[in-house]
Amino acid sequence: MNLFNPGAVFGVVGGDFRQAALAKGLSEGGYPVRVFCIERPPQFLPSQLCCENLDGLSGCDAVVLPLPVSNDDRLLNAPLNTACVPLSDLFSRCRSDALLFGGKVSPAQQRLAQQFGHTIHDYLEREEMAVLNAVPTAEGAVNLAMNERASTLWESRCLVTGFGRCAKALAVLLKGFGARVTVAARREGDLAFARTLGLQTIPLRQLQEVLPQQEIVFNTIPAPVLTRPLLEQLQPECLIIDLASRPGGVDFEAAGELGLKTIWALSLPGKVAPITAGGIIRDTVLHMMADLAGSCPPSPILSK
Amino acid sequence: MNLFNPGAVFGVVGGDFRQAALAKGLSEGGYPVRVFCIERPPQFLPSQLCCENLDGLSGCDAVVLPLPVSNDDRLLNAPLNTACVPLSDLFSRCRSDALLFGGKVSPAQQRLAQQFGHTIHDYLEREEMAVLNAVPTAEGAVNLAMNERASTLWESRCLVTGFGRCAKALAVLLKGFGARVTVAARREGDLAFARTLGLQTIPLRQLQEVLPQQEIVFNTIPAPVLTRPLLEQLQPECLIIDLASRPGGVDFEAAGELGLKTIWALSLPGKVAPITAGGIIRDTVLHMMADLAGSCPPSPILSK
Amino acid sequence: MNLFNPGAVFGVVGGDFRQAALAKGLSEGGYPVRVFCIERPPQFLPSQLCCENLDGLSGCDAVVLPLPVSNDDRLLNAPLNTACVPLSDLFSRCRSDALLFGGKVSPAQQRLAQQFGHTIHDYLEREEMAVLNAVPTAEGAVNLAMNERASTLWESRCLVTGFGRCAKALAVLLKGFGARVTVAARREGDLAFARTLGLQTIPLRQLQEVLPQQEIVFNTIPAPVLTRPLLEQLQPECLIIDLASRPGGVDFEAAGELGLKTIWALSLPGKVAPITAGGIIRDTVLHMMADLAGSCPPSPILSK
Amino acid sequence: MNLFNPGAVFGVVGGDFRQAALAKGLSEGGYPVRVFCIERPPQFLPSQLCCENLDGLSGCDAVVLPLPVSNDDRLLNAPLNTACVPLSDLFSRCRSDALLFGGKVSPAQQRLAQQFGHTIHDYLEREEMAVLNAVPTAEGAVNLAMNERASTLWESRCLVTGFGRCAKALAVLLKGFGARVTVAARREGDLAFARTLGLQTIPLRQLQEVLPQQEIVFNTIPAPVLTRPLLEQLQPECLIIDLASRPGGVDFEAAGELGLKTIWALSLPGKVAPITAGGIIRDTVLHMMADLAGSCPPSPILSK
Repeated sequence: MNLFNPGAVFGVVGGDFRQAALAKGLSEGGYPVRVFCIERPPQFLPSQLCCENLDGLSGCDAVVLPLPVSNDDRLLNAPLNTACVPLSDLFSRCRSDALLFGGKVSPAQQRLAQQFGHTIHDYLEREEMAVLNAVPTAEGAVNLAMNERASTLWESRCLVTGFGRCAKALAVLLKGFGARVTVAARREGDLAFARTLGLQTIPLRQLQEVLPQQEIVFNTIPAPVLTRPLLEQLQPECLIIDLASRPGGVDFEAAGELGLKTIWALSLPGKVAPITAGGIIRDTVLHMMADLAGSCPPSPILSK
Repeated sequence: MNLFNPGAVFGVVGGDFRQAALAKGLSEGGYPVRVFCIERPPQFLPSQLCCENLDGLSGCDAVVLPLPVSNDDRLLNAPLNTACVPLSDLFSRCRSDALLFGGKVSPAQQRLAQQFGHTIHDYLEREEMAVLNAVPTAEGAVNLAMNERASTLWESRCLVTGFGRCAKALAVLLKGFGARVTVAARREGDLAFARTLGLQTIPLRQLQEVLPQQEIVFNTIPAPVLTRPLLEQLQPECLIIDLASRPGGVDFEAAGELGLKTIWALSLPGKVAPITAGGIIRDTVLHMMADLAGSCPPSPILSK
Repeated sequence: MNLFNPGAVFGVVGGDFRQAALAKGLSEGGYPVRVFCIERPPQFLPSQLCCENLDGLSGCDAVVLPLPVSNDDRLLNAPLNTACVPLSDLFSRCRSDALLFGGKVSPAQQRLAQQFGHTIHDYLEREEMAVLNAVPTAEGAVNLAMNERASTLWESRCLVTGFGRCAKALAVLLKGFGARVTVAARREGDLAFARTLGLQTIPLRQLQEVLPQQEIVFNTIPAPVLTRPLLEQLQPECLIIDLASRPGGVDFEAAGELGLKTIWALSLPGKVAPITAGGIIRDTVLHMMADLAGSCPPSPILSK
Repeated sequence: MNLFNPGAVFGVVGGDFRQAALAKGLSEGGYPVRVFCIERPPQFLPSQLCCENLDGLSGCDAVVLPLPVSNDDRLLNAPLNTACVPLSDLFSRCRSDALLFGGKVSPAQQRLAQQFGHTIHDYLEREEMAVLNAVPTAEGAVNLAMNERASTLWESRCLVTGFGRCAKALAVLLKGFGARVTVAARREGDLAFARTLGLQTIPLRQLQEVLPQQEIVFNTIPAPVLTRPLLEQLQPECLIIDLASRPGGVDFEAAGELGLKTIWALSLPGKVAPITAGGIIRDTVLHMMADLAGSCPPSPILSK
C-alpha cells in the first residue's frame, strides 16, 4: 500500500548497506528510486538501481539521507562511496520543494540545510523507528552472547538492566530461549510490566542481591550502573554486554581489572541486520510522509 | 521484605473481597493489620483478622480505603458490611499523622478528607497498579470469550482495538492460546510494538478491512470506535467484548439491532480475580509508602 | 484442497454439535453432505443441510458416525434426534462400497457392522485426532480453573501430572498465562522435554515434595496418582482438576473428606468447543480417506 | 540430590570440553571425580581435577567414556590429550565391578570391552539425552543463521523439514524470535502437533508449494529431501542449514551449482555449547545409574 503520491521519486543518498536495503525496499514497494553516493553497492541491490551523478537529485521529490547524515557535520556519511561528498553539495542540488529525511540530524547539520532552504526530518526521532530497531538490537545482543559462550542461553541466568524498548525486546527474546531472566529497573511501573511478562524482577537499587548468580549481564541504561563495587559481585566467568549508548553503563576499566569479559555493543541494527534496519527506515519514512501529507491540503491519491 | 516501618499498623476499611485479600496479604507480609467495615468476610480471611469497631482506627498508622472509596461521595463503599458508614465518621477517627490511601478518589471525597486534616493518596493513579491490573482484565476477557463460545480460542481470529496496557496483556495472552490476533491502533509506535511481538497489525483508520474475517472483537478504546457502519462489516456470529470504560467503544444499540452478541465487561479485576486484585493493591500501597518515606527525614528502619 | 474424490457424497449421522459442525465443515470444504438423525440442529448448521430420512444413506459414499457411535452397542448415539435409531437400521441402509467412520468403536459395534458387510474406521485411534483434541481439552481445563477461582492463573502455582498430549498442551498454555508450572512425570524423557520447554519438573515418585505449595493440580494420568496420603499434602484451598479418563487419578472420596474441591472433567472437547471438535473430526476423516485411497488403485482425481 | 551411592568415585576419561564440563558438573554435584586423558584441560575445569595416570582407573566405581568413545574402534577419542591411548589399555585397568558408560558405542567397541569383562552403557541411546541435546542443536542452528545473514530472524520466513526432537526445539525457538515458521513433515500426527504449537504446516509431499517464499530452510531429515528439482524452487539468496546426520538431506552438489549457500551443521551441541552438552551427559549418566541401581538388591543409600 502506497502511503504517498505513487508518482513521487525517491533519492537515496550515501550510507551503508541499510541505505541500499532502503533503496531496494522502496523500489519493491513500487516507488521510483534513484541512488546516489553508493558506488560500491552490496550484491542484493538490483543492478538497475545504479549509482548516479548528484545532478539527478533535482529529479527527486523525497531525499533520504543516511543514519547518521554525517560524522563531522561537513561530509556525507558514505562508506560505500569513493569520493567524499560535502553536505553543501547535496543540499544545493535538492529541489526547494523536496522533502529531506535523515537520521540523527545534528543542530549543525540542520542549520546547514536551512541555509539552502531545507528542513531535514529526522526519522531516528520517530517512536516506531526506536521500537522496531529494538528487535535487531536484541537479536544482535543474543548473537554476541552465543558467539562468546560455551553454554546454551537455555537455562542460563541472564540479567537485563533497564526496561526501555531494547530491554523489553531482549528480555522477551531471552525468555523464548528458556533463559532465566531477571529485569532490574528503577521505576515500579517498569518492574510491574516485566512481572506481567513472566520475568523475574529486582529494583535497581537492590541490584547487588542478584549479581552473584548471573551468567550474562545485558546493560541498557546509559548511566554508570555497573560500578566497580557491583562488578566485584559478579562471578569471573560472567559475560557483560553493554548496549547503552555513550557513556555506556559499565566501568570498563574496573571490569578489565577484574578480568570480566565485557563487550560494548553499539549500533547493532546496522551491523547485524542492515537489510532489516533499512526496511525499518523505509517504513518510518513512509509514515512520516503520510503524516506530512495529512497536514497538507488533501490529495486524492493519498490513501490516508 | 518490609518497605515500611515494620511496626506500622495497617487499617483495612470496607470494600469487597479485594480489601479482604489486601488485609490477608499485609498480614502474611508481617504487618499488623486491623479490619473495619467487613462484617461478612470471605472464607479466605484468617479468623484472627476479625472486623472491629471504628474506634480502633485511631490505632492505625496507615489506613487503606477501598476502590472506589465511595459510590456517592458520602457513604463508604462497603458491600460486605451491614451498617452504612459515612466517610466523615471514618475521617474523624483517623489520627492526624496517619497515611490514608484509597482508590479512584473523587475531588469531593478528597475535599471531605481535607476537612478532617487528611489527604487520600490514590493508588489507582499509580502506573504499576494499572499495569498489573491489566493481567486480571485480560484473563477475565479471555474467560468471558471461552464461556460464550463453542470454539477454541486456538486458531480463532481475534481483533484487539487499542494497544494500551490491557490490550497488550490481552493480545499476548491470546497469542499464547494460538489465536490469530490482529491489533488495530492509531499510533505508529503502538503498531510497531505490536509487530515486534509477532502480532498482525492494522492502522485503526483501516479497521474495516479486517472486520469481516474476525470471530471475536475485543475493544479497549473508550471512544466510539465500533460504529454502526463498522459493525455491519462483522459476521453475525462474531462476539464483541468491550473492555473500555464509559462510554465504551461500541454502538451497543446498533450491535443489538444487527444481532451481534456484545458484552460490556467493566471492572474485571475485582470480579474475576479479587484475591489477585487485592494483592496488587497491597503491592501498590507499599510502594507508595516507600516513596513517601523517601521524601521524609531518613529513618533507620526503612530498607530503602 | 480436497483429498478425496470431489464428487464423493458424505453422510453425517447422529451425534451432538460436533457432528453438526462436521457437516458444516465438510459442506464448506466443497463436499456434498447429507445429514441424518439430527432433527434438532444447532443454529450454526446451514438450513440447506436439513435432516433427511435414513433411506438417503444409500446415496452416500462415506458415512461418518458420531463419537461414540453408540452408548449401548445397539442404538445410535443421537442426542439431537427424537427417535431412537438402531445401529442395524443404519448399517442395513449403507451401500456395501461405502466407507464407514466412527469414533470409539467398540468390538460389539464393529461385529454388528461386519454382519452387514461393513468395517467402521475409528477416527479416535488416529494420532492427529488425539493431538488436536488436546487443545480444546487444555482450554476447557483452563476455563474450569478460571471459573472456580478468585485469583489469576498468572503467577499461580500449577502442577500438571503426566506429560502426554493433553498435559503438554495444558502446560504450555498455562505458561502462556504466566503461571508457575511444574510437570510431574515418570519417564526421564518426558521430564527432559518439559525442561526444554522451560517448565519446572519433578519425578513423579517425588511428587509429595511439591504438593504443599500448589494452587491448582491438573491430573492427566489415568491411574491412582493422587492417593489420600498425597492429597493430605495439599493446602485446603487447592483446586484439583482431573482430566484422566476412567478410573481417573484422584481418590475422590479422600479428596471430599479433606474438603478439597475436585472436578473430574471428562470429554472436554465436545463440551467446551464442539465446533472445533467437529472440525478436528472432519480433518481426521479426510486424512483417513486419503490414506485409504493411497492403498487403492491410483485415482487421477486424488491430490495425493 | 545424589541418585547414586554418594561415596561412588567417578572416572572421566578423554573427550573434549564436554567431558571436562561433565567432570566439573559431577564434582559440583558432590561426587568424587578423577580425570584421565585430558592433559590440556579448558580453563573452566577446577585445578584440583587434574589429569592422572591411567592406573587410577582401578579406583573408580563408574567410568564415563567420551562421545564418541573412539573414532577408529581402537584408540580413545581424546583430543585434549597428547598421547594416544588404546581402548584396550583402558578396559584392562577398569575394575570388573565398575560401571562403564560411553556415547555412540559401536559394536566393535562393545565387543572389545566385553573381552575385558565389561559392558559399556550407551548414554546416547537414552531418550532424555536426545531430547536435551535438541536444545543446543537448535541454538547452534539459529546462531549459524544469524552469523550468515544480514536480516533479522524476526519476520523472516523459515522452513523446518521434519518434526523430530531437534525440529521441535528449533521451530519453537524460531517462533520465539517472531519468525514465520512453516513445518513440513510426513506424518499427520506431527503436522497436527506443529499446528497446536501455532506453527504453519505443509505435508512433506507438497513441499514445493512453500519453497519459493522461504528465506531459510532448516532440514532435519536424514534422507534425500531437498533434491535438485526442489532446490530450484528456492530463491538464490535463501540460506540452507542441514542438521541431518549422514547422508544429510540436501543434494549439496546441486545446491552448489545453483549458487545456494548451504551449511551442513553436524554435532552442534559439542561445538556451540560443550558445557551444556557435558551437563546433559552428566544428568543422563546419573539417571542410568539410578535405573541400574533400581534393578539391584535395594540399597539404603539410594534416594530412589
